[in-house]
Order: sequence, then structure tokens, then C-alpha cells
Amino acid sequence: MSQVATATLPAASDLISLVSRVSGDLEALQSAATSAVRARVSENGKVSAARIDAEQHAAHGLSWLATYVTGVREAAGWAQRLSDEGRFGEVEQLLLAIAAGEYTAQIFGGIPISQNEMVRLGDLGVDAATVASHRTAAVEELIAVGNTPATRLRLVELMKDMDGGSSIGATGLDETLEAIRSEMKRFADAEVVPHAHQWHLKNEYIPLDVVAGMAQLGVFGLTIPEEYGGMGLSKVSMCVVSEELSRAYIGVGSLGTRSEIAAELILGGGTDAQKQHWLPKIASGEILPTAVFTEPNTGSDLASLRTRAVKEGEGDAAVWKVYGNKTWITHPVRADVMTMLVRTRPDVAGYRGLSILLAEKPRGDDANPFPVEGLTGGEIEVLGYRGMKEYELAFDGFQVKGENLLGGVEGEGFRQLMQTFEAARIQTAARAVGVAQAALEVGLRYAQERIQFAKPIISFPRVSDKLAMMAAELMIARQLTYFAGRAKDEGKRCDLEAGMAKLLAARIAWSNADNALQIHGGNGFALEYTVSRLLCDARILSIFEGAAEIQAQVIARRLIEGGN
Amino acid sequence: MSQVATATLPAASDLISLVSRVSGDLEALQSAATSAVRARVSENGKVSAARIDAEQHAAHGLSWLATYVTGVREAAGWAQRLSDEGRFGEVEQLLLAIAAGEYTAQIFGGIPISQNEMVRLGDLGVDAATVASHRTAAVEELIAVGNTPATRLRLVELMKDMDGGSSIGATGLDETLEAIRSEMKRFADAEVVPHAHQWHLKNEYIPLDVVAGMAQLGVFGLTIPEEYGGMGLSKVSMCVVSEELSRAYIGVGSLGTRSEIAAELILGGGTDAQKQHWLPKIASGEILPTAVFTEPNTGSDLASLRTRAVKEGEGDAAVWKVYGNKTWITHPVRADVMTMLVRTRPDVAGYRGLSILLAEKPRGDDANPFPVEGLTGGEIEVLGYRGMKEYELAFDGFQVKGENLLGGVEGEGFRQLMQTFEAARIQTAARAVGVAQAALEVGLRYAQERIQFAKPIISFPRVSDKLAMMAAELMIARQLTYFAGRAKDEGKRCDLEAGMAKLLAARIAWSNADNALQIHGGNGFALEYTVSRLLCDARILSIFEGAAEIQAQVIARRLIEGGN
Ligand SMILES: Cc1cc2nc3c(=O)[nH]c(=O)nc-3n(C[C@H](O)[C@H](O)[C@H](O)COP(=O)(O)OP(=O)(O)OC[C@H]3O[C@@H](n4cnc5c(N)ncnc54)[C@H](O)[C@@H]3O)c2cc1C
Ligand SMILES: Cc1cc2nc3c(=O)[nH]c(=O)nc-3n(C[C@H](O)[C@H](O)[C@H](O)COP(=O)(O)OP(=O)(O)OC[C@H]3O[C@@H](n4cnc5c(N)ncnc54)[C@H](O)[C@@H]3O)c2cc1C
Ligand SMILES: CC(C)(COP(=O)(O)OP(=O)(O)OC[C@H]1O[C@@H](n2cnc3c(N)ncnc32)[C@H](O)[C@@H]1OP(=O)(O)O)[C@@H](O)C(=O)NCCC(=O)NCCS
Ligand SMILES: CC(C)(COP(=O)(O)OP(=O)(O)OC[C@H]1O[C@@H](n2cnc3c(N)ncnc32)[C@H](O)[C@@H]1OP(=O)(O)O)[C@@H](O)C(=O)NCCC(=O)NCCS
Repeated sequence: MSQVATATLPAASDLISLVSRVSGDLEALQSAATSAVRARVSENGKVSAARIDAEQHAAHGLSWLATYVTGVREAAGWAQRLSDEGRFGEVEQLLLAIAAGEYTAQIFGGIPISQNEMVRLGDLGVDAATVASHRTAAVEELIAVGNTPATRLRLVELMKDMDGGSSIGATGLDETLEAIRSEMKRFADAEVVPHAHQWHLKNEYIPLDVVAGMAQLGVFGLTIPEEYGGMGLSKVSMCVVSEELSRAYIGVGSLGTRSEIAAELILGGGTDAQKQHWLPKIASGEILPTAVFTEPNTGSDLASLRTRAVKEGEGDAAVWKVYGNKTWITHPVRADVMTMLVRTRPDVAGYRGLSILLAEKPRGDDANPFPVEGLTGGEIEVLGYRGMKEYELAFDGFQVKGENLLGGVEGEGFRQLMQTFEAARIQTAARAVGVAQAALEVGLRYAQERIQFAKPIISFPRVSDKLAMMAAELMIARQLTYFAGRAKDEGKRCDLEAGMAKLLAARIAWSNADNALQIHGGNGFALEYTVSRLLCDARILSIFEGAAEIQAQVIARRLIEGGN
Repeated sequence: MSQVATATLPAASDLISLVSRVSGDLEALQSAATSAVRARVSENGKVSAARIDAEQHAAHGLSWLATYVTGVREAAGWAQRLSDEGRFGEVEQLLLAIAAGEYTAQIFGGIPISQNEMVRLGDLGVDAATVASHRTAAVEELIAVGNTPATRLRLVELMKDMDGGSSIGATGLDETLEAIRSEMKRFADAEVVPHAHQWHLKNEYIPLDVVAGMAQLGVFGLTIPEEYGGMGLSKVSMCVVSEELSRAYIGVGSLGTRSEIAAELILGGGTDAQKQHWLPKIASGEILPTAVFTEPNTGSDLASLRTRAVKEGEGDAAVWKVYGNKTWITHPVRADVMTMLVRTRPDVAGYRGLSILLAEKPRGDDANPFPVEGLTGGEIEVLGYRGMKEYELAFDGFQVKGENLLGGVEGEGFRQLMQTFEAARIQTAARAVGVAQAALEVGLRYAQERIQFAKPIISFPRVSDKLAMMAAELMIARQLTYFAGRAKDEGKRCDLEAGMAKLLAARIAWSNADNALQIHGGNGFALEYTVSRLLCDARILSIFEGAAEIQAQVIARRLIEGGN
């Protein structure tokens, strides 16, 4: 009598082929949209940066469209690979149908690019006829059968028995990667989960023995080549590790971020001697780095930063003296080295005057955070993302060895950093996936335990719908993150892919946390419940490592400037 | 060359008539949707509660659709009234165009009913032909000209000079109400704004002299009839007061909530003696009430609550002895009376066994919170909404005078409370409007002050778009809240109107806070910045006084059971 009772999915192989056809239609639509936006932001046949700025709604809308299209394509690819391996089960089919169906519907009806900005195809300058021509029979069919009350209900029915895993449905990764995941999960469940909430509530440091435990597991050297003491594994493995640790606590999942940044910087831009010196110590966890880029007046617009480094002396006696203020620096007190972006050429404005220093410093503690000449700092108290502590830093003649200029060349700092940000953003996307997963898990558990109106609240569609969408979107975010990881592993410039993964995964971490909290009702608002922390932790993900708007801007530029 | 440069609004009167025509089209659409959903949830021609539950996506989607449609209609009415008074200026025109344009576009493209649930007309069972027939030329025109980069840009241009007011654009209220607003704003700016953030950070009580100041201004007796020592003003005035105080601090804006609930309960259900005894003391602020309904196992499903009250003794010696646990009780320590919902008839299951007691208690303090026999309690620490403190309470033979049964009748408690909730939900909608306004203001200010890429960030459309939508949605939430207030003032059952206002305003408070935080970048995440508190405060609004899903359920039932 109603849709709920009758809707059914196509057979697995038909579903994959349906989504693949839709994926093709959407790529064609994206290409039309790219042309439309490109025309709109061009002046005399040339793309104008000022016009992109003026047309951000359209340009960023294009970025989101492309992110959705890529997400659907990657989901279809994931399904196909699983199917080839005989692992494309009912859960995975439902995830694919719901996620691809919903994203396709949003592409044609409106994509929320923030909680109060909705982008529709018309905003991109795609005319109604073009929209209609891409709204094929396959598109209509996927929208009709993909995300329905029945598919959501069935998925949640199956999810009820899945408590305890790290993902709803197969991740599609190989056994080696899943073995790494299991190892991390074991560690995290034992050493992190039981304590994380207290660390958060008390604003405590993650204990150093947890850091040591991670070091032992090789977390800090995961992607560092074996010749430098690392494990030489892929960026995808870094994703798995970051996901799994962040699922337990974002603070722990973020301990590796700064090692990843430092290692990437040194690998990509360091001299041989620098690689030999630093990488093994970073890989072993003996050295904890901190990343020192942002300034009070300079966040998104890093290229304009003003902290200066002045070279004094020559040869072995040379030192850089640093003057200026940095802020929002994560984990500086217990760090041994700062990867600092500074202006070494005051006469060169913009990014060409910037260089990276590898600045050694002694570890401090709460009582004496910076036991070194020329460096002071004050803690910034924060909503979430605790466990490492944030600081504002003041440099006044702080000394860095002359040899610690990255690569021994000035003026390369910004580009070195931008390449590094690709890996950092992929890692951040993976952290977001972990947080989103944690939110899904606590929401799923609570919804089964909490009884209202004489039933577990999971029986109410408004509760189970949220859980179904959390799982479906999470699948897309995860696949998009692995996709970006693979792109990085292939060694190509991938700020586009990394940006997409980070943009989407951060939004999903936030919406999953928000909805998991809603499922908790009043209890979600109590500091005692984990979900109240997850909300706070999730909020950072759309801000740091490039705010959502900056991510969208990077993606838009690449799309518009690139081919189709 | 681009839309930004060329889009223009119709003349003011044409705009109003356009929105009015669209409003008519949308009402017709709502009526079609109501029929479709009604058919879907009916069994053998009768509406089935179980089918409404099973079809929550459609039923709640209908509630949201109706909320949008009512919002657009009320916005048109507001514009017409302003226009009649010669006050429909450019800001108001832009607000109307943007809000009505966007909501109309969402109605046809998809309404986000939470951060991961999107409802489209097809989900309600409205077929494509019916949708198309309501997508009139007026609808197309409003979507095309209403919410565009150009209208948003212009609105924000005008908003830049408006810092300091309590609303972007005219509220449409009369001078008396605006005088009340000014008085409240003066008080709040002097006594609350400078301290609120510290109260929050330190989890401190709002000082009693602030409460006394509010009492002096008549806040607690605002809507109590003059014969009982109140000011006998309208519910709309209560909205203005709640809005303005909540704009300064939600805790202060919420101090009156419990007085409102108690007064409504007693006015609606009390005996003459009870009115004479309690109302003057509530009106003067001499007595602070607390509202004691929720239990650990009973939140949304209040009718099933289990705290028992047993009558012992007869006549003047009669007492009610209370046994059971309550939770999530706001401001109980410093309260003088508890309006308690308890089961006095253990043999009667469901809501018919419930009664309201007016339970006196002595004030306590942090050291000795409950200096009375039979009552103990523990604080629940919370993300936001601080200043009054939340408690879990245990009753073990706690005594209430026999005469303090509301109305002197048993079994009427639930219905008495439901009527009261109408006023409480309207008041909550007004609190949400206040929080949403506060978020807009801090966002607007920060966006003008913060410079990145050599410009105030407000020059970037992604920043100014957020501000424009905040202001436009806020206008709709405000008008919907006043509309519900007027309905209550007319004395008719208005859980439908109250539910809509609360549902929408709570969402907008949340999205405004979220977006204002995003505008702050990293600083939004620092506890030091007001916006970090606003985010926490805003989050409660979709949970208490009936969670968003419950609100949607109440609205859906009324729509489906009512006429068209
Ligand atoms: C908890 C935390 C940890 C951090 N850790 C580190 C760290 O370890 N090391 C480090 O160097 N930094 C760190 N950061 C800083 C972080 O990278 C910055 O906060 C981030 O890059 C944003 O910069 P901002 O805060 O200055 O925001 P702003 O750049 O001032 O941006 C404010 C708002 O304006 C928007 N905006 C800015 N420019 C544009 C534009 N052109 N178009 C549209 N919108 C625009 C932004 O998207 C944002 O919404 C951390 C921050 C936080 C909060
Ligand atoms: C800060 C704070 C202050 C409060 N102050 C007071 C107070 O002073 N006095 C008082 O009595 N109470 C108070 N409350 C309690 C508040 O009213 C309840 O939290 C609220 O009614 C929700 O109930 P719950 O927490 O039990 O959630 P639940 O009822 O357990 O709901 C959990 C989730 O399930 C959903 N859900 C439940 N039933 C359904 C359904 N049938 N269909 C679809 N979804 C459903 C809900 O929408 C919610 O998302 C307060 C709560 C908080 C957090
Ligand atoms: C906004 C932002 C993307 C750069 O914008 P910009 O100043 O306009 O810089 P451009 O994009 O023009 O890039 C400058 C140069 O770097 C190069 N570059 C940028 N990204 C690159 C990448 N991923 N790989 C290689 N080169 C890159 C550009 O090609 C350009 O070089 P060119 O002039 O030789 O062509 C950058 O400042 C940013 O990412 N901000 C966010 C800061 C952040 O994430 N902080 C986190 C701290 S933890
Ligand atoms: C869910 C909820 C709406 C009631 O659902 P329910 O148990 O199904 O109750 P019903 O809607 O069937 O209502 C029960 C009776 O009250 C009546 N009633 C409900 N709302 C009413 C109103 N606004 N005015 C008059 N009567 C009302 C109904 O008509 C019904 O009476 P009837 O059986 O004689 O027809 C209610 O429990 C609720 O609002 N929960 C949220 C709790 C809350 O807001 N807590 C905040 C504490 S601060």
C-alpha cells in the first residue's frame, strides 16, 4: 500500500550498472557546469581570479558539485571492486543505493554547502534545458529507488547487529590494510577509548606512554621510506591508521599529523643531510614535531605572513633569528622541532619571500612550557580537539641553526608547504572519517538502548533515517579519502582530490556528530556523554587545514583552470 | 555580463504582490501534499497513528513544508503591513526577496529537515504533474529574482551600517512593543552582556541581583493579568522580552520560562485560591518556579511518566508524598516552587493518571542544594545553557501540601501542561530568535573587522552570503514567532503555530551560530570568543521543550487530522 512496503532494490549487478550510468551522466553535467562557471569567471577569454572571488557562490558550488560527482563515481568503483571479489553484500548495496541516490537528488535539487547556503544548478549558470538533458532515465530511476524509507529501514535493520566494527559494510581495502586497521583498533580500544573522554573534560595532555605505544606500532613512520627508518607504506595506510585512532579520540588521531607534515616537508624539500638527520627520528617517534604556520593576522592567507627570520653569521656559525607572532599552534610544548614558515626575504612580498625552517626546541611542560631563549607562549582554551593543547607563540630573537633551512634554499617555503598540505588534508579527511564513524557508533548504540513510547527509539524513522544517512555518507567520505590517498601515492599533484576529501569528510563528521547528539536527546547535552565531546571535536574539521571555503576555492580554481 | 551585475528586484509593491501570489500557490501545494500524506497514513479511510509513525519522513516533511509555507505567508503579511505604514524600505524588501525566494526554491528542490535528512515533494507522495502545476510563473520569477548573489550582496552592504540594533530591518511591531524592546535592550546591554560569557565559562549562577533587576522591570509578570499583580500584556510582548534578553544571554532569557510555565498552568488550571495565592508572587519575582516534568526514562513520552504522589491524611492535614526520579530540571536549587507532573493514579496508565502539584520548597545553594526532607539532587554538567544549573532529582517521601494539587482535580495534569507548552514553546521560539540574532551580530562584526587577502572577509561572497541568509531566515523566524504569539493571544489552541515557530527558530539559531562560528575561523573555536558559547547555547533549542522530531510530529498530526 505504501512505498515503505513495496520499494525494492534492483539486483546487485544492475544497481552497480545503474549507478555507473548515472555517474557518467553526472560527469557530463559537471563538465557542462564547469564550462558555464568558467564562462562566468572569464574576462576577455581569460580566467580572472577577481571574478572567481566575486562569483564564489557559483565557483564553490561547482566545487561541491564536483565533490559529489567524484564521490558517486568512487562509490561505484568501490562497489564494482567488491562485486568482483564477491563481497558486494546487501549492506554494501544499500549503502550505495542510498548514498548515490541521495547525492544525485541533491545535485538536481540543491546541495547544502553550509547550514544556510544551498547551491542549485541554476546558480552555476546551467540553463534549464541543459539540466533536463542530463536528467536521464537512469538518474530518475536512481532517485526513485535509491534513498527511500524502505532502503533506509532495511539498512538500519542490518546495522543493528554490526556494533563493534570500524565501518558499516566492507571498506574495500585489502587484507594487509585491514590487518593494520585491526591492530590500531586493538590499541585504541585498549589504550585510548577508556580515557579519552576524561582527557577531554580535564583538558589533559594525552599521556606520553600512549605516544610511546603509537611509536612502537610505527604510527609516526608509517609512510616514511624504509631507508629512513620508516615503514614505507602507502598514504592509504596512513588514512586507515588516522581513521582508526581518531575514531577513539581525535587528539590521538592527530598526534601523527605533525609528523606527517614534517616528514613530507623534509622528504619533498629537504637536503640529503636533512633527510638522514631528521627522518629516522621522526619515524621512530623520538622526535615530535609541531607545525608553525598561522599568525594572528594570517590564517587562510598564509602567503602574506610576517614572522621574520634574519640570518646572522656565516658558515657553521650562521643562525636564523626569528621575530614575530604565531598562533593556533598545536602541541608546541612537548614538541622537539617546529616546522616554521617564515619570511626570510622581507623585500619579497607574497609567497616568494617565504621559507621553511626546521627549528629545534627543548620540550617543556605546563609549569614551564618554553624553556628556551626568545620563545614564549600562552595557551588558547578550546571547545574540543584537546589533548595536545593550542598555543599562541611569540618569537623574539629565537635562534635556529643556519643549516636548518629546509632544502638549503630560500623562497621555496610556500610551495613546499602546499605540496605537504595535500598529504595533511588527506590525513585530515581520514580523521574526519574516524570522528564521523565514532558518532555513528554512539548514535546507533544509544538508539537501540533508549526506549520512548514503549519502543527503542531506533524504531522511529526519524531516528533510523539519521543513522542510515550517517552510514551512507560515511561510505562516500571514506571512499573519497582513499581515492585521494591513492592519488597522492601515485605522486601526482592532488590538491583537488585532497581538497574534495577534506571538504566532504569534514562536513559529514559535523553532521554525523550533530545528528548523533540529537538522537541522544537531552543526554546529548550532558558533558558526561561521549557525544557531547564528539560534537566539539567534529567542529574543528571544517576550520583547520584550510577552512571549508578555502578548500572550495582551491578546488574551484583547479577545476576552472584545468581541463574539463 | 554576469548575474551579479544585472539582477534587480521588482518595485516594492510588485515584490509584495509577487510573494503573495507565490504564497497562495504554496498554500495550494501544501494542501495537495496534506492530502497525499493523509492518504498515505490512512487505513480504511481513517488516519492511523501507527502509519504516521511508520511514515515519519513524509509526515514530518509535511510539517516542515507547512512551516515554510506559513513562514512565507507571514513574511508577506509583515511586508504588507510595513508597506501600509510606509516603512517597507530597501532592507526589508531584500529580506523578503531573499527569504521567500530561498524557501520557495527549497520547497521545490529539497528542505533540509536536519543536517542529513532532506525532504522533497516526491517523498510526500506528491506526483510530478501536481508539483509542476504548482510551479507557476510567479514561483519561477520569485526563485529567479529573490535570492541571488546581487540581492545578498546589497543586503549585506546595507547591514554593515546597522550594527547595534536588535534586528536587521523593521520588526513590524508597534511602538509600545518596540519601547519594551528598547528598555530590555538597555537593561541587557548594561547588566548582562558584559558578564554573560564569564558566567558561562565559570558555570556560575546568574547573580540574584540580575534576577531582581528583571523583576523590577516586570519580566516575570508580563503576561499575568493585572488583577493578579501582573502587567497583563500580550504573548507577543513576552516574545520581545525573551528575544532581547536571550540575545544578551540565553540563561537570562530563560529565567522567565519557568515563571511563564507556572503562571500559565495556574491561570489555565488553578483554583481561584491558587491564583490569588501564587500569581502575584510569581508576577513580582518573589517566587521563582522550576518545572519538574522529565524523568530519566521519560522525556519525549511524558505521558508514561512514573514519579508517584500518594495522598495521606485528610482535609487540612492532607499531604502528597512524592516518590521517584526526575531529571534535567533547570534551576531547581534557587526555586521556591516546583510545578511537578506526577502520577497520582497509579492504576490509570498513560496521561489520564497524571496531575500537577505546586510543590513548595526552600531555596538552597551550591553547598546545600536541597535543604529539605525527601529531596536530593545532583548537578548535570552541560555544554551550554548555563547560569541556572541542571539537576537530577530524587524524591523519597518529599511532602507537598494537599491543597497544592493544581485545580484541585486529579488526572488533568497532562492536558493542563500541553496547553501550557504552547506558551512555553512560543517563548522558546523567541529565545531562539534572540540567540540567532546574537550570532548574526557577532558574525557581522567579526566579518567587518577581520582582514584576509588584504580585505575585510565580509567582501568575500561566501562570508557575506552566510550573513545575508542569517538575516533573512531570522526575519522569517521572528515573524513566525509573533504569529504564534498572536494566535495564543487570541486564546485558541495553537500547538500547530507554536510548534512551527519553535521548530524553525531553533534550527535557525543553530545554523546562525554554526555559520557565525565558521566566519570566525580558528578564533571561533577559542573559548574566549562569544561565538563559541553561542554555538553551545544554540544547540539546546532543538532538544528541549519538545525535540525537533516531536515538534514535527505534533504539527503533522494537527495538519493531517485537521482540515486542509
Ligand atoms: C584547534 C586548532 C588547531 C590549529 N592547529 C594549527 C597548527 O598546529 N599550526 C598552524 O599553523 N595552524 C593551526 N591552526 C590554524 C588554522 O589552520 C587556521 O585557523 C585556519 O587556516 C583558518 O585561518 P583563520 O583562523 O585565520 O581564519 P580566517 O582566515 O580569518 O578565516 C575566517 C573565515 O573567513 C573565510 N575566508 C577567508 N578567506 C576567504 C576567501 N578568500 N573567500 C571566502 N572565505 C574566506 C574562512 O573560510 C573563514 O570562514 C589551528 C586552528 C585551530 C582552531
Ligand atoms: C539543558 C536542558 C534543560 C532542560 N530543562 C528541563 C526542565 O526544566 N524541566 C523538565 O521537565 N525537563 C527539562 N529538560 C528535558 C527536556 O525537555 C527533554 O530532554 C526533552 O523533552 C527530550 O527528552 P529526552 O531527553 O528524554 O529525549 P528522548 O525522548 O529520549 O528522545 C531522544 C531522541 O529520540 C527522538 N524521538 C523520541 N521519540 C520519538 C518519536 N516518537 N518519533 C521520532 N523521534 C523520536 C527525539 O526527538 C530525540 O531525538 C531539559 C533538558 C535539557 C537538555
Ligand atoms: C589560499 C591558499 C590555497 C593559497 O592561495 P594563494 O595565496 O592564492 O596561492 P596560489 O594558489 O596562487 O599558489 C601560490 C603558488 O603555489 C603553488 N601551489 C599551490 N598549491 C600547490 C600544490 N598543491 N602543489 C604544488 N604547487 C602548489 C601555485 O601553483 C603557485 O605557484 P605559481 O605562482 O608558480 O603558479 C593557501 O594559502 C592555503 O591553503 N591557505 C590555508 C592555510 C592552511 O591550510 N593552514 C593550515 C595550517 S595547519
Ligand atoms: C509527544 C507529546 C506531544 C504527546 O503525545 P501523546 O502522548 O501521544 O499525547 P496526545 O497528543 O495523544 O495528547 C493526549 C491528550 O492531550 C490533549 N492535548 C495535547 N495537546 C494539547 C493542547 N495543546 N491543548 C489541549 N489539549 C491537548 C490531546 O487532545 C489528548 O486528549 P484526548 O485524548 O482527550 O484527545 C507530548 O508528550 C510532548 O509534548 N512531549 C514532549 C515533552 C516536552 O516538551 N517536554 C518539555 C519539558 S520542559
